[in-house]
Amino acid sequence: MVIECVPNVSEGRRPEIVAAMADAIRAVDGVRLLDHSSDASHNRSVFTFAGDAAGVERAVLALFERAVADVDLRAHRGEHPRMGAVDVVPFVPIEGVTMADCVALARKVGTAVADRFHVPVFLYEEASSNPARKNLEDIRRGEFEGLAAKMATDGWAPDFGPAAPHPSAGAAVIGARMPLIAYNINLDTNRLDVAKKIAAAIRHSSGGYRFVKAMGIALEQRGIVQVSMNLTNYEKTPIFRVFETVKREAERYGVAVLESEIVGLVPSAALNAAAEFYLQMTGFNADQVLENKLRSLKSEV
Amino acid sequence: MVIECVPNVSEGRRPEIVAAMADAIRAVDGVRLLDHSSDASHNRSVFTFAGDAAGVERAVLALFERAVADVDLRAHRGEHPRMGAVDVVPFVPIEGVTMADCVALARKVGTAVADRFHVPVFLYEEASSNPARKNLEDIRRGEFEGLAAKMATDGWAPDFGPAAPHPSAGAAVIGARMPLIAYNINLDTNRLDVAKKIAAAIRHSSGGYRFVKAMGIALEQRGIVQVSMNLTNYEKTPIFRVFETVKREAERYGVAVLESEIVGLVPSAALNAAAEFYLQMTGFNADQVLENKLRSLKSEV
Repeated sequence: MVIECVPNVSEGRRPEIVAAMADAIRAVDGVRLLDHSSDASHNRSVFTFAGDAAGVERAVLALFERAVADVDLRAHRGEHPRMGAVDVVPFVPIEGVTMADCVALARKVGTAVADRFHVPVFLYEEASSNPARKNLEDIRRGEFEGLAAKMATDGWAPDFGPAAPHPSAGAAVIGARMPLIAYNINLDTNRLDVAKKIAAAIRHSSGGYRFVKAMGIALEQRGIVQVSMNLTNYEKTPIFRVFETVKREAERYGVAVLESEIVGLVPSAALNAAAEFYLQMTGFNADQVLENKLRSLKSEV
Repeated sequence: MVIECVPNVSEGRRPEIVAAMADAIRAVDGVRLLDHSSDASHNRSVFTFAGDAAGVERAVLALFERAVADVDLRAHRGEHPRMGAVDVVPFVPIEGVTMADCVALARKVGTAVADRFHVPVFLYEEASSNPARKNLEDIRRGEFEGLAAKMATDGWAPDFGPAAPHPSAGAAVIGARMPLIAYNINLDTNRLDVAKKIAAAIRHSSGGYRFVKAMGIALEQRGIVQVSMNLTNYEKTPIFRVFETVKREAERYGVAVLESEIVGLVPSAALNAAAEFYLQMTGFNADQVLENKLRSLKSEV
């Protein structure tokens, strides 16, 4: 069972504090720290780790312990919106685990955080208890500075913990979501208007696919344009459908697709779905992938 | 590091003997027995196991120990061609291992088999020392009954071991090859001639792709036909190229592709290659697959 967790912490300027947080995660059994990076202008750090539910829970609590001790939101300045010392904690199902498992884990960890650190917790995305509190941006609007007033208004009691912010650590947003895929399609033209029109056609906010965020940008040095995307649920809005739609829309302007690229990581199921679609495969299941079969046998030991 | 090994043994009628062979493989540390099956009319069993080089070597030697003790080719009858108690031993690179590693392993295991059991060993496929002895069929022609005479002729000294067959265990063929993919494409027609013509167009033996074996067959109950294939090197003759060629050839007869199917296991790299091709992906590498990344981190422990 593998769950990925990508907490965002409101500290990106003191390397020794960030290193202590990374060490706290590394010290937890059953968890691997995959990556962490800090941004000084945002004054924020992002950690990526993975493990089973129990391990991931212990790692999140270890991270809260460090952050609640070392981060004071009253003195925090940075470009990125934030309302907590540990600002956002998403759980992402990767392997042998369902979204429902990740939602249950978000509730369990949220309860533990509230009990142990007296930090109020709001659930978000798939774990949200309330349609008005599904999007992170809606929950975080007003930020730490406006949090006490916001929590005093109707509909903004937290899901777990005290009815007012923690004095220095604010509040935390904890939830579950699908893995993000950063996906770009390069067009064989320098016409930025074409990339922008295609981005508008496919993104959710302007009438496109439910789980696509997109914008058109120029790659100045190469003299071409790009439809730059985030795919936020590859099961419901698969890569191949987005690719085919972009290709068809580009044709309408007499423009060809040059290439596409995945930036960073992609779940193998997202690639397998493309192979299944184009090869018109019938009756395929993930157990037929040799590596999956070997892995499932190893875990039986 | 994962190497798959698929030995074929000349015993498929005495379940207790086959079970003892399976137990001997299971008892080896560092190896997993994935599957085994027996065919009474062939009087032959196929074992599939996987592990690191050292584990796979130990398992092959454990299997020889049982087979040399329990199988006597002088009394063996069955439909399938054979010349040894352990007839064929292919090593297949799966993960974190090259074909060159599997060739080296074939030579090492071949030497050990000859030394320990006095069974002559012929190397085949990628491990072959001689172009005339690359194909299994060429090495095995004449079978056990003709083996002593064949080995006395020019060019048929074994790669390792005695110059004459083992009295009861014959000789073994050991080598390295790519994983096989059993792949079928179903056509929306009942015209068997179309399936046969397409099979002839794509298979190596009649002028098609180097690593395709194919035949056209009727799926009587469904009233359709199938191009039934083995892809013997998915890196050099990839699935997507075979699929696109079959689709184009079918069009020429006014026939559509209904669906395709993979029978049994497929390496994830073979599916990823299809996704890369159809999505016109640039700069993709296997480390971007989330599961691969997690696995490589686990193995660093």
